[in-house]
Amino acid sequence: MLIGKRGTATTAIAVASAEKVTVRGRNLAHDLMGRATFTEFFFLAATGRSPTKEQRFFLDLALVAIAEHGLTPSVQAARMTYAADPAALQGAVAAGVLGCGTVVLGTADLCRKLIEDVLARVDALGSLDEAALAVAREHRAARKPIPGYGHPLHKPVDPRAERMITLARERNVAGRSVETALALAKAVAEVWGKPLPMNVSMAIAAILRDVDVPPNLIRGVPILARTAGLLAHLIEEEAAPIGFYLASKGEEAIDHRAEAAEAG
Amino acid sequence: MLIGKRGTATTAIAVASAEKVTVRGRNLAHDLMGRATFTEFFFLAATGRSPTKEQRFFLDLALVAIAEHGLTPSVQAARMTYAADPAALQGAVAAGVLGCGTVVLGTADLCRKLIEDVLARVDALGSLDEAALAVAREHRAARKPIPGYGHPLHKPVDPRAERMITLARERNVAGRSVETALALAKAVAEVWGKPLPMNVSMAIAAILRDVDVPPNLIRGVPILARTAGLLAHLIEEEAAPIGFYLASKGEEAIDHRAEAAEAG
Amino acid sequence: MLIGKRGTATTAIAVASAEKVTVRGRNLAHDLMGRATFTEFFFLAATGRSPTKEQRFFLDLALVAIAEHGLTPSVQAARMTYAADPAALQGAVAAGVLGCGTVVLGTADLCRKLIEDVLARVDALGSLDEAALAVAREHRAARKPIPGYGHPLHKPVDPRAERMITLARERNVAGRSVETALALAKAVAEVWGKPLPMNVSMAIAAILRDVDVPPNLIRGVPILARTAGLLAHLIEEEAAPIGFYLASKGEEAIDHRAEAAEAG
Amino acid sequence: MLIGKRGTATTAIAVASAEKVTVRGRNLAHDLMGRATFTEFFFLAATGRSPTKEQRFFLDLALVAIAEHGLTPSVQAARMTYAADPAALQGAVAAGVLGCGTVVLGTADLCRKLIEDVLARVDALGSLDEAALAVAREHRAARKPIPGYGHPLHKPVDPRAERMITLARERNVAGRSVETALALAKAVAEVWGKPLPMNVSMAIAAILRDVDVPPNLIRGVPILARTAGLLAHLIEEEAAPIGFYLASKGEEAIDHRAEAAEAG
Repeated sequence: MLIGKRGTATTAIAVASAEKVTVRGRNLAHDLMGRATFTEFFFLAATGRSPTKEQRFFLDLALVAIAEHGLTPSVQAARMTYAADPAALQGAVAAGVLGCGTVVLGTADLCRKLIEDVLARVDALGSLDEAALAVAREHRAARKPIPGYGHPLHKPVDPRAERMITLARERNVAGRSVETALALAKAVAEVWGKPLPMNVSMAIAAILRDVDVPPNLIRGVPILARTAGLLAHLIEEEAAPIGFYLASKGEEAIDHRAEAAEAG
Repeated sequence: MLIGKRGTATTAIAVASAEKVTVRGRNLAHDLMGRATFTEFFFLAATGRSPTKEQRFFLDLALVAIAEHGLTPSVQAARMTYAADPAALQGAVAAGVLGCGTVVLGTADLCRKLIEDVLARVDALGSLDEAALAVAREHRAARKPIPGYGHPLHKPVDPRAERMITLARERNVAGRSVETALALAKAVAEVWGKPLPMNVSMAIAAILRDVDVPPNLIRGVPILARTAGLLAHLIEEEAAPIGFYLASKGEEAIDHRAEAAEAG
Repeated sequence: MLIGKRGTATTAIAVASAEKVTVRGRNLAHDLMGRATFTEFFFLAATGRSPTKEQRFFLDLALVAIAEHGLTPSVQAARMTYAADPAALQGAVAAGVLGCGTVVLGTADLCRKLIEDVLARVDALGSLDEAALAVAREHRAARKPIPGYGHPLHKPVDPRAERMITLARERNVAGRSVETALALAKAVAEVWGKPLPMNVSMAIAAILRDVDVPPNLIRGVPILARTAGLLAHLIEEEAAPIGFYLASKGEEAIDHRAEAAEAG
Repeated sequence: MLIGKRGTATTAIAVASAEKVTVRGRNLAHDLMGRATFTEFFFLAATGRSPTKEQRFFLDLALVAIAEHGLTPSVQAARMTYAADPAALQGAVAAGVLGCGTVVLGTADLCRKLIEDVLARVDALGSLDEAALAVAREHRAARKPIPGYGHPLHKPVDPRAERMITLARERNVAGRSVETALALAKAVAEVWGKPLPMNVSMAIAAILRDVDVPPNLIRGVPILARTAGLLAHLIEEEAAPIGFYLASKGEEAIDHRAEAAEAG
């Protein structure tokens, strides 16, 4: 049975024949291998276009900025999974990728939408600052966290966000999206009554938008980045295992409450 | 409870504090962001060393060579999974990563071991060709497939392997491992009585070994590469869905045999 | 670092010591093994209570109703994944579980919320039928599909839903939730101008609600059920592989459009 | 392209049409729903046969015995994953299922093979005890752990294994496989110079073999069992989150060693 509609039943990404592999119309072996970096290849495969110099630079920057953050929950999940079956490296990576959900890493996409929400109000409200304030107040009134501001560890600033903004200015690509992110930072500080640092997800969303990286590719950036970090940890896990030890320390920290038996 | 031994209880990859993230002893924001490409970062995080120029070139080359091969089974699994929950991009990527198992993509690691097996016999057997023949004959006698030779589609040559070998020669890095891979190709043709093309997994294993990329990193290359390809397909799936249609065509091609009810 | 709040740092489900395993206050070996069926155990572990006779009966019924539906997309994804690494059974099951997303199997939970939405309007609107009509009209006006009605294959009725309702009546457990589901069926037929069959997700949601199965357990039912079906298919895949053949037929059905290279 | 052979291109498990779902030749709605428990359904779907009374009893027993063991590594991985995206329950379950690898839960299958290895030597060696001793000595000489004996927590006995053997005797199904498991326990104690408790994986393998449950179904038992336990934990995680707290305690227990930067 077919669930939903048939659709176009086409793909534009790649096709392989006996003598060649074609990716977005290019001959993989002759036009891409040895000519494109992995980052350039990712941009091309995902969008159908070769990146500009600045798109390549800032896509590399974004991938490097969030590939690694130490023993995050998703890294720990991956290391525990690897310890249970070292022969299935792909299973351990998958377990880690599954931890790249909206709460932790998925916010770049929400940040982009927030920027667009602010920009859509500028005409009606008269200025970027007023539009940013309106959006911040709405989140606060609804008791919703505002994506892109605040970090559980990095205070008073997220050094990765700061560095990205600096580089965007140095290379003259900081545009309307970066302005919006900065206006939101001010608005958030005023509405919450304390500074919340712009975090790396907002910096990525703003800068990649300013250099015209398509939105859907931004959504994939955290997952590709963290896959590199996960592989690094799993290579270390093989040589110096800590997966089961991590689990034993977690278990020790939790009390068992038999009396809570009626929850559910 | 602790399963197995406590081990060293250390990690050398990364640590984050309020003001900075340290990766392999480098300050992420200042020393790596804007300076390292994503590929260089991956090498550093995984090995603790910055790549040489040739290591960087051939790691990029390997990642580009196998990131994309059209509508592979793992791409189809990912697209079907995405169709069932477009909000959980990470789940669809994970489903695709799980398809990067030993049968399809995991062979680079086996190829490296095969090369080392041949090299270990050279002294006893007198020449690389004799050592390659001995290994090929053992596989044939045991009716085991020989990793790195033959491909379900690419015949008479795998264009990606060919291109990699060409580039390795042009850049003067082809060494003992590439020689071994070529000696094995001759031995396999003789023992099997027909040419089996050296495939891309063997080319990757041989060349990365010749430029001293550590073995464990090689094992991770197919997974990182394919994650980029999977993301490209999932971005397309969102805009032009084919996941459920693929499944409907698969289903149509299979007969239901009620009489086979006693298998198991 | 800690993401979010510390919380209670307790669990009430299970704890293991050298001499025993305790599950929800019961000694696993002595009080549960040999006394509880797997379904009863699942109910107890998840809720802290032993099921009543009717809860056990209808939980078994729901699990049996949706465990298996032939070569669904998630089964195909699992079989393709297994084909790529037969040693990692858990990876293939996980790939299939990832396909149990909101579009396909996650609707029981949405159906329960729909029932509660209708019930919350009865007082204001005067009758169950009016409340159901109001909810159906809102979905239609917003061009949203209404969860629990319609099925890509089963027409004019979903035989599994019909059988569940029959059994609920025979055993005298059909209550306010089943009434609501039937009122919605009428309302949907009127608003959409054609009958849409009540599907198995709505029947499960309504009946399990009428026998007081906690909502969160309902959310887990499709996943547990399908895991049994997935395992059956993977056992068959080992003996009679079709995973890669399914993928080859899917691939054949899709055209490659090089001209669409600028999407993204 | 087709990887490998076309094969039979058939399935015998299930097929769905507009008016019915057929599972192993039975009409799902009429012959199975309301008549089969979930455990009976699993046996039927996987093997094509209805279970005997004892097969049903001991399959339920095995599933209950290993569904839950507190905050195991796979449960922790699942809870961390859930915390990162509570909307994607299937992703968290999948992360937990991925932890059911050979080191932790996959041993029932190895235990069955061990039993068959011992039995195959009885004729040549004259007795079950001699055959068991030979096998134990081979493992010891090769410094390989022997599957099915020893447990990181349960000492001097695994209460679940003990209970299973007791029930097998009470119900008169303990046969040649259980005898072999007991002979191996004696042999292991002698060869290792200390008692190693028969664990639950060996008890499951032996008893399910004695009641003629097919080997492939045994391999799936731990995964189905743990899925129920994982769902219980994820339901609790929603109400009383500990996932990120577990990760914070794990992280605290690990030292960062910058000097180890050259590993890999």
